[in-house]
Amino acid sequence: MERGQLHSSRSFTLEELASEVGGVAEGNPAQSISGVAGIREARQGEISFVANQRYTRFIDDTQASALILAPGMGNGHLPVLRTEDPYLAYLKILRLFSPLPAERFLPGVHPKAVVDPDALLGKDVHLGAGVYVGAGVELGDRCVLLPGVVIMDGCSLGEECLIFPGVVLREGVQLGRRVVIHSGTVLGADGFGYAWDGKRHQKIPQIGGVEIGDEVEIGANVTIDRATTGMTRIGEGCRIDNLVQIAHNVQIGPNSIIVAQAGISGSTELGSGVTVAGQAGVAGHINIGDGVVVAAQAGVTKSVEDGVCVSGYPARPHDEAMRHLAALNKVPELIRRIAKLERELARLREDSSEETVGQD
Amino acid sequence: MERGQLHSSRSFTLEELASEVGGVAEGNPAQSISGVAGIREARQGEISFVANQRYTRFIDDTQASALILAPGMGNGHLPVLRTEDPYLAYLKILRLFSPLPAERFLPGVHPKAVVDPDALLGKDVHLGAGVYVGAGVELGDRCVLLPGVVIMDGCSLGEECLIFPGVVLREGVQLGRRVVIHSGTVLGADGFGYAWDGKRHQKIPQIGGVEIGDEVEIGANVTIDRATTGMTRIGEGCRIDNLVQIAHNVQIGPNSIIVAQAGISGSTELGSGVTVAGQAGVAGHINIGDGVVVAAQAGVTKSVEDGVCVSGYPARPHDEAMRHLAALNKVPELIRRIAKLERELARLREDSSEETVGQD
Amino acid sequence: MERGQLHSSRSFTLEELASEVGGVAEGNPAQSISGVAGIREARQGEISFVANQRYTRFIDDTQASALILAPGMGNGHLPVLRTEDPYLAYLKILRLFSPLPAERFLPGVHPKAVVDPDALLGKDVHLGAGVYVGAGVELGDRCVLLPGVVIMDGCSLGEECLIFPGVVLREGVQLGRRVVIHSGTVLGADGFGYAWDGKRHQKIPQIGGVEIGDEVEIGANVTIDRATTGMTRIGEGCRIDNLVQIAHNVQIGPNSIIVAQAGISGSTELGSGVTVAGQAGVAGHINIGDGVVVAAQAGVTKSVEDGVCVSGYPARPHDEAMRHLAALNKVPELIRRIAKLERELARLREDSSEETVGQD
Repeated sequence: MERGQLHSSRSFTLEELASEVGGVAEGNPAQSISGVAGIREARQGEISFVANQRYTRFIDDTQASALILAPGMGNGHLPVLRTEDPYLAYLKILRLFSPLPAERFLPGVHPKAVVDPDALLGKDVHLGAGVYVGAGVELGDRCVLLPGVVIMDGCSLGEECLIFPGVVLREGVQLGRRVVIHSGTVLGADGFGYAWDGKRHQKIPQIGGVEIGDEVEIGANVTIDRATTGMTRIGEGCRIDNLVQIAHNVQIGPNSIIVAQAGISGSTELGSGVTVAGQAGVAGHINIGDGVVVAAQAGVTKSVEDGVCVSGYPARPHDEAMRHLAALNKVPELIRRIAKLERELARLREDSSEETVGQD
Repeated sequence: MERGQLHSSRSFTLEELASEVGGVAEGNPAQSISGVAGIREARQGEISFVANQRYTRFIDDTQASALILAPGMGNGHLPVLRTEDPYLAYLKILRLFSPLPAERFLPGVHPKAVVDPDALLGKDVHLGAGVYVGAGVELGDRCVLLPGVVIMDGCSLGEECLIFPGVVLREGVQLGRRVVIHSGTVLGADGFGYAWDGKRHQKIPQIGGVEIGDEVEIGANVTIDRATTGMTRIGEGCRIDNLVQIAHNVQIGPNSIIVAQAGISGSTELGSGVTVAGQAGVAGHINIGDGVVVAAQAGVTKSVEDGVCVSGYPARPHDEAMRHLAALNKVPELIRRIAKLERELARLREDSSEETVGQD
Repeated sequence: MERGQLHSSRSFTLEELASEVGGVAEGNPAQSISGVAGIREARQGEISFVANQRYTRFIDDTQASALILAPGMGNGHLPVLRTEDPYLAYLKILRLFSPLPAERFLPGVHPKAVVDPDALLGKDVHLGAGVYVGAGVELGDRCVLLPGVVIMDGCSLGEECLIFPGVVLREGVQLGRRVVIHSGTVLGADGFGYAWDGKRHQKIPQIGGVEIGDEVEIGANVTIDRATTGMTRIGEGCRIDNLVQIAHNVQIGPNSIIVAQAGISGSTELGSGVTVAGQAGVAGHINIGDGVVVAAQAGVTKSVEDGVCVSGYPARPHDEAMRHLAALNKVPELIRRIAKLERELARLREDSSEETVGQD
């Protein structure tokens, strides 16, 4: 196992792995496997996979000690775990080698953690050095708060939340069960609301909350603002990537995906199973239907109905946007064709006036 | 009041609220009100408002115990606070229910805060757990520094600044009075300046500072870089949203607004009352005049004169950009019209040559 | 020296500075210089420079006590450091006045730092208050970790790394020598990988690492994710600005520059000496050749060959993109020309049919 990786120290025989993933061990079933990696990066003792014909050319040079292959794929003389779906088998084996948070972060409160006497800690929580837990906070069983996490007054966290170093939960933020939040993310900062009074931008107090559903995972350096009144809500099973901005009073349905550096403006509602790709922006006070896909860097200015894929700025249905772009690419040709038409028409007009002259 | 919100625990009668906002209590002036919320989210004991005809349809189903309404609006049998401007009244009442920082964060230095002996603390400051205050720092009276804030050497903060958890002020950053900075924001990191010497990008030292005017509010995970030499300056009363980038030596005039994920490049100057909307970018070394509005996702590559609204990439005056987009939308139709012209012209030419032939 | 700046407290005579930069002192060689600044912001005792004719108009009003000027430039009666390349001389003098990290952050471990007994600290390291260093971490000699930095288990840092407050290095992150990381940056958070199983987005474990080459500098609030397996790699000498997103398994060649708020999607490879300008996005699983320049706000969807400059969305070679934009700007004119063609053609057809009629 290469230094710097998160591999557990487990090892398995090829046969054990085959039985875990419902495949067949070929070559040397007793081959010991201590890790898993991509075909080009795998080292001795590791298993790799080829799910895509593009990568078969790397088989001969790989350092891997075994390969996960679909039926009929050549193996370069390596032991093989044969299975119908090599990628799925790879994911299952990745999980076998991936240490669980509970293994990595054992229960216990570091002496340099600060816990308000008025906080309620569940069983077997892990609080790292420099963690701060405010008054009235409720931590579910087996929550893990890593060094430097700040949980302000009145927050509640369901069971088995995993909060990475440097996360800040402002007052009253509510997390469901098994929520994972990566480092540097801020939940519950004030929404961005001001009213111009002729002299200054008067702050509109932001006294609502933030509610995160079960099994949501939120990336690093994300910001999800608290509602003006009521709640900013992220539905269960959502996946939010790094550096995403979710403004006050946004509502996101379950199992939606927001990719890195995208932004959702205030009070907008997203349905379930929505995908907002990287660096896209969605305007405020609109509705994005279930299953909508917003392409990367799109700018969505109007509501979008269920199941539609939109792209471009201003965003429109993706096939329409593609036709639009294709049409725009013809403009240089149009310029030439128009110039030609103008010349021909001029000539024709001349001819016709000459004719007329000739007929006189 | 719903769990997770920041409401104070105050309550008022409807009549008291009416007198606070200059309105009239109708129905039951003694109705006790303990909170304020949107029409769809309000609960028993809370007051809500309708400022927009679109929302009157929610009046019959609201759980609110009273409504703020304009003259002539129906009330669904609820007690009413009648006023000419329901939204303004709502804002005032929001403030009544919003706890003040001074109420939430009482004076005192947490025993786990670290304060350099060479720092000067004003009266009644609040320093949370894990706060670090470096040498030569000056904190004004009633400043609040929440857990995990790092104030490096030589910074100065005016009276009543409110610094949320995890903020970093690098060396020498200067804040005016009543500045509010949300979590994860970094002021005074080195500007991004290098000179290629043929082998590597040699760092240009960044030894200038950052100066933030009175009553500025800065969102979460923002970055405002220190100047190369001189100062990066944010004028008084500016409002900066989350994840905004302000590069070295930028100058922003008073009361400007920079919305989430926008970026201002190095040495650019913004006038007063400028608005830069979400995900917009402004190039370096240009001037953005007073009152300019930069639309969302715009890319501003040249200076913009006072009062102009620009949009698109490259950004141009918004009405021109709208006409440009409208023109582009006609391209598919132009393609058809040109093809038709070509066919007709071809036919006409044939006819005219046949005529000519016929005349021979 | 203005309050809030990072100037060292050194001072030099004009003659000493001239000899440092290979120039000539004119006027008063004994003039004492205690700082350096731009022409408009310089104060008494400071030296400034004019490298650009646009700035000569500020010479008469400057408060500077001396000027760095090219041969033949007028000096407004101030002492002059005369040199062929005033900007280069300015950079050298900036460095003279810039305090070195080793001067600012003396060796020592703050009593409020937390260091795992199983960490290895090099000689003369500086660990600030509230720093956390996990098990198995290796810190090179003279590393500086400022307040609130969190280094999780198994990380390794080469000599003389400078890590600013609030940075988080997740498990196993590896830094080369003299790496500088600004505040709020997160290295090694989980890559964004899920597989939809029909009910939920199953997490793909992210067990790879992050490897940062020698002398890389990374801005504030950046996110660089760990690889799924293998490594996310940033080559030596790269410069990464604030709020940049680098996804899992990205490989960046040496001496590349990524400007603020740009994003590189998963598994994409950048060559050496690449520049990705502000707010640009690069899609996943593509190759960006050596020396490529991606313009600000561009969206790169396909691989780009060595040395090409691309811009726009979807990105294309910059000169082609410029011609495309120029063509699009002609569309309003095209609309008018087509309408004119249609009118003229209609008239011609009428004429020709009249003629035909006349001939009958």
